[in-house]
Amino acid sequence: MTHQVVIVGAGFGGLAAAHGLAGADVRITIMDQRNHHLFQPLLYQVATASLATSEIAWPIRHLVRKRKEVTTLLGVVTGIDTDNRCVLLEDGGTAKYDTLVLATGARHAYFGHDEWEPYAPGLKTLEDATSIRRRILLSLEHAERETDPGRRAALLTFVIVGGGPTGVELAGAIVELAHENLPEEYRHIDTRKARVVLIEAGPRILPSFTEDLSAYAHASLERLGVEIQLGQAVRECSAAGVIYGDQPLAAKVILWAAGVRASSAAAWAGLPADNAGRVRVEPDLTAPGHPEIFVIGDTATISAWHGKPVPGIAPAAKQQGAHVARSIRMRLRGDTRPRPFRYQHSGNLATIGKRAAVIDFGWIKMRGRLAWWIWGLAHIYFLIGVRNRLAVALSWLWIYATGSRNACLITQGEPRPPVGPV
Amino acid sequence: MTHQVVIVGAGFGGLAAAHGLAGADVRITIMDQRNHHLFQPLLYQVATASLATSEIAWPIRHLVRKRKEVTTLLGVVTGIDTDNRCVLLEDGGTAKYDTLVLATGARHAYFGHDEWEPYAPGLKTLEDATSIRRRILLSLEHAERETDPGRRAALLTFVIVGGGPTGVELAGAIVELAHENLPEEYRHIDTRKARVVLIEAGPRILPSFTEDLSAYAHASLERLGVEIQLGQAVRECSAAGVIYGDQPLAAKVILWAAGVRASSAAAWAGLPADNAGRVRVEPDLTAPGHPEIFVIGDTATISAWHGKPVPGIAPAAKQQGAHVARSIRMRLRGDTRPRPFRYQHSGNLATIGKRAAVIDFGWIKMRGRLAWWIWGLAHIYFLIGVRNRLAVALSWLWIYATGSRNACLITQGEPRPPVGPV
Repeated sequence: MTHQVVIVGAGFGGLAAAHGLAGADVRITIMDQRNHHLFQPLLYQVATASLATSEIAWPIRHLVRKRKEVTTLLGVVTGIDTDNRCVLLEDGGTAKYDTLVLATGARHAYFGHDEWEPYAPGLKTLEDATSIRRRILLSLEHAERETDPGRRAALLTFVIVGGGPTGVELAGAIVELAHENLPEEYRHIDTRKARVVLIEAGPRILPSFTEDLSAYAHASLERLGVEIQLGQAVRECSAAGVIYGDQPLAAKVILWAAGVRASSAAAWAGLPADNAGRVRVEPDLTAPGHPEIFVIGDTATISAWHGKPVPGIAPAAKQQGAHVARSIRMRLRGDTRPRPFRYQHSGNLATIGKRAAVIDFGWIKMRGRLAWWIWGLAHIYFLIGVRNRLAVALSWLWIYATGSRNACLITQGEPRPPVGPV
Repeated sequence: MTHQVVIVGAGFGGLAAAHGLAGADVRITIMDQRNHHLFQPLLYQVATASLATSEIAWPIRHLVRKRKEVTTLLGVVTGIDTDNRCVLLEDGGTAKYDTLVLATGARHAYFGHDEWEPYAPGLKTLEDATSIRRRILLSLEHAERETDPGRRAALLTFVIVGGGPTGVELAGAIVELAHENLPEEYRHIDTRKARVVLIEAGPRILPSFTEDLSAYAHASLERLGVEIQLGQAVRECSAAGVIYGDQPLAAKVILWAAGVRASSAAAWAGLPADNAGRVRVEPDLTAPGHPEIFVIGDTATISAWHGKPVPGIAPAAKQQGAHVARSIRMRLRGDTRPRPFRYQHSGNLATIGKRAAVIDFGWIKMRGRLAWWIWGLAHIYFLIGVRNRLAVALSWLWIYATGSRNACLITQGEPRPPVGPV
């Protein structure tokens, strides 16, 4: 029997593992609860009406169509029978594995306040993005018709919780949308007066960057019109708004970019996990006691970056996927020695609106307009396929040149996972 | 007080009316229950994963942003108080008018069998399109995992009810998707064996075309692999499939392209309507007894095409919108004589897959590949704005050259009208 590899999750890590196994003597099953791979670093641009959904998502089947040894399976995993080496699916199906790769990513987390989620959605899936786009645009629509000044102000206040790259990028994009792109479209409100408030519990935004880049990003965001509140944790999210520190702030749109929690992979297989649900993997990325199970990306935690934890970013997941593929190839050749994973950090990038970015490659630090162009080219380069690169480049150039965001569509019904009856 | 025109519905007719009033001494309110204008002739391409939603939809506000006298209002109309000349909205709001233009379009109709709708959705909105795309792709996903031959066959059977242009275009696009674009993506099913069945109650498909073009379309569709059933009405739609004539046909995906019913505009204002709910308008497109109310597009019925009813197509709605604008301008100048509307028919077009089309301009009839190119160029020409023309042209050229449909995304939750709480 050919060695069977089951990869759960077709994000950056899972796809890198499948890619690294090209030509190896294995059969591969890629499972995901969605039918598409998603380029999450640009998801905030779907949420803020710059890009279309299909520009940053690819059907998984299409990506591996030439690989006849790869089977794609749309399904929801509910458990793992490690004794029988079998993945259990919601619909009663099962999938046997010789080697299992768990790469199921993370969702946003509310530090024990899951009841905040309906009021403060996070941004991890296409449905999240179109749902957030809907909230932002509907809030402006309602403000346009609201006559009560207090309610109107709440409809024109956008709160972003969390000052990491996602929070910074969302804040910059929303303030530009409201202050630059949309003012002439409304008759009764001045969208330039919309407030965008970024709340960060720590002492500075972009804590993974150096202090001077962080300070530059802070100043740039404020120049764009974002209000930044540091050192104050959010204590309450509700339909009325947020409470941070002792301050209540009335706001109809609250976006959550403050924390993530790993998927349930640890629970499926009874594996040891940290507070955020991430599996504490061995140095070779296998689960403790289970050399046949690899756990990678946001689902795992490992201190393989000169003793520091590997960050939860796309390049890290890709490197781990590639490492897993190499380990499996070695084992197939009879070499079962554990190969420790070492993370190579290439850098941190974040945009601040459409005219500035901060880049920290270690050996070089950049900020401003040139950094923005490098950020843009890097992201286009990492998109999959010529067609999406062209489409995203066209969309960006268009917005850059005209200020018109074409994807201002209110369409989404209530999000529902895309598996289920036809 | 400046003359107030309220236009309900931002489809082809409503926008043409607004466009024709540019520079006139009026204030205009455009109301719609969606925030976007939709290019419905290409909606079937969103449903069949060729185009992205944002490529054929434009935010209404954006289209009229330079017209300071135009206010856009997102809302659901529930009634019209003709005595007080006031439109009533679901949220309790009202809008006074001096002249009212009803251009609210039509929905699909089930000939008294509304209970069929959950099993046989129609195609009128972006949500319809992404929901149909979801059904088609999920059916293939389920078929891939189904082991029972009967259930698998039902999952691989796609029924289209109605042989007009929409039904023909859907059938051609689905058969190409399944037979040409997707086969190499599946491992357990052969999508080339998927059945696409087009059921038409009348004696031929495309009844609005000449008999020879209709026969050509019939032969072309069959060559693509579509099974055509003529002269048999559908008597039942259910989760199991359809019954047409005496034949039951097991099918998980049934699409409805058989009939339309006008929106509720006639009921709102208590106007006389035909069986399909269309207001029987006067020769000048006004509602009987209400010279201040114009009704146009699919919401109206009028025999202004050499004594024949005006067809329910985009050019007809546009001509009516332009006629209304001219009439309002005349009235503002004091000329209140009714100006009868006369429809100028420019032609019928329909595509059959991505390599053939039929065109009947009256003075010239065409079919085949050249007709397809003319069809494509005509549709790109009628899209709004350079950006969407570029985007659609890029999408089509890409599919044409590579056979890859990028928009194969299963994303949509249950459709919900895009008005409501944030």
